Amino acid sequence: MAADTGWPGCAKSLKGVILDLCGVLYDSGEGDGTAIPGSIEAVKKLKASDLQLRFCTNETQAARDTFVAKLQRLGFDILVSEVFSPAPAAVAVLKERALRPHLLVYDGLLPEFDSVDQTNPNCVVIGDAAEKFSYQNLNEAFRVLIGLEKPVLFSLGQGRYYKETDGLNLDVGAYMKALEYACDLKAEVVGKPSPTFFQSVLNDMGLQPHEALMIGDDLVNDVGGAQRCGMKGVQVRTGKYRPSDERHSTVTADGTVDDLAQAADAILNHRH
Amino acid sequence: MAADTGWPGCAKSLKGVILDLCGVLYDSGEGDGTAIPGSIEAVKKLKASDLQLRFCTNETQAARDTFVAKLQRLGFDILVSEVFSPAPAAVAVLKERALRPHLLVYDGLLPEFDSVDQTNPNCVVIGDAAEKFSYQNLNEAFRVLIGLEKPVLFSLGQGRYYKETDGLNLDVGAYMKALEYACDLKAEVVGKPSPTFFQSVLNDMGLQPHEALMIGDDLVNDVGGAQRCGMKGVQVRTGKYRPSDERHSTVTADGTVDDLAQAADAILNHRH
Repeated sequence: MAADTGWPGCAKSLKGVILDLCGVLYDSGEGDGTAIPGSIEAVKKLKASDLQLRFCTNETQAARDTFVAKLQRLGFDILVSEVFSPAPAAVAVLKERALRPHLLVYDGLLPEFDSVDQTNPNCVVIGDAAEKFSYQNLNEAFRVLIGLEKPVLFSLGQGRYYKETDGLNLDVGAYMKALEYACDLKAEVVGKPSPTFFQSVLNDMGLQPHEALMIGDDLVNDVGGAQRCGMKGVQVRTGKYRPSDERHSTVTADGTVDDLAQAADAILNHRH
Repeated sequence: MAADTGWPGCAKSLKGVILDLCGVLYDSGEGDGTAIPGSIEAVKKLKASDLQLRFCTNETQAARDTFVAKLQRLGFDILVSEVFSPAPAAVAVLKERALRPHLLVYDGLLPEFDSVDQTNPNCVVIGDAAEKFSYQNLNEAFRVLIGLEKPVLFSLGQGRYYKETDGLNLDVGAYMKALEYACDLKAEVVGKPSPTFFQSVLNDMGLQPHEALMIGDDLVNDVGGAQRCGMKGVQVRTGKYRPSDERHSTVTADGTVDDLAQAADAILNHRH
């Protein structure tokens, strides 16, 4: 009989699982936010199995050690070394290409860039800057770009919007599009769904794409991004999930589950 | 001999001329800005001729009577009734389609919309709001749009940026692109280069497109927009003109002149 490549049969041949954070492990909101029911236990079970486990997020409002500490306070068994986020990936690219960034990011993210030369900038990096996306700040980033002979714009993710307790909020992708149009350029996206970003997680686990599965609440950036790299992608019906995702025109998840707890049980049950 | 359709020979058969304001008649800046040398006299000469004359601008930081008064103070022979700008055009569309706008525009433009019902908005109108383009205000416009079953976004122009005395500034087009991306929609542009907008000026003069000539400093929005309507388009080397405009990949002006004074002389000399 041929190997089962569908969900959840494919779990049999898996060697690693990658989890998104916000909307999968917890919901953001006041204070630390709240853990999604069953997710703390699910992470524990996956860690206790023979599978490798990594976390992959587009979080750019806080430095990695800050938001990992928050998750630990919520009760999650998670280490900084297991978490991949856009800012450290951007720092690596900046150093590799000897680029000096003008930063338009949330104050909480600034410490991630402490080791990078920011004098006389020759590129711009934007993250989810939220209320720091004032006209003045965006115009300043625009003037840096338009003044460069070869303008380079890095965007930490390309999300359209995200959900907080008080409603929907514009995400970095909208401001990326504004600068792309004003400067007639194409931004380089660092973070999901960039294939380079997913590949760095696979490299860390020492796995081939077909040996890994991504679980996320964002159909396009988590599931679609992982699939374009050759991984399986499963969507949870928590976080920013919307029923219309299940009839999306271009991305079809390998599986859709109620939550991380259900996903973890399905994976582990198919390995015995 | 065939009729000359090139510039400036085509002036012989012209019946009307349309002028852009900022960058053609004057440069904006502190106070009222400054008239471009020779332009006051050029407007006077064109008005004294047998040609019809109209003014067509994407100005959206002030109400029409306010910026026309400014031009009069600078010495221009110009009347409100001769000027076409996006806000009155938008008001006409809103009333025709019974739409109630949420406005994200510069405070000075608000009086233009006094006659429009703005309760319980079912569309969004954005103009060059400058420092009013805060994260909070853009997010508010976004929330109105994303909450509508059929979101409608009007953008008063689609400029990338403009020049002021202190440097380049982001224009409304960048914010239009941000909202288009976040809400997955296409904005309706009111103002140049919309064909509807140019056609309304032609209608007012009672002319066919081939009988009219547009003179502007913006190659894409003035010259290209007019040409797409069947008019001639001439660019002046003042305002936001850049030498690279003369080797643009998609738009080629019918003529390029140093300034409005030179354009007016060329037109009037070819009619005698």
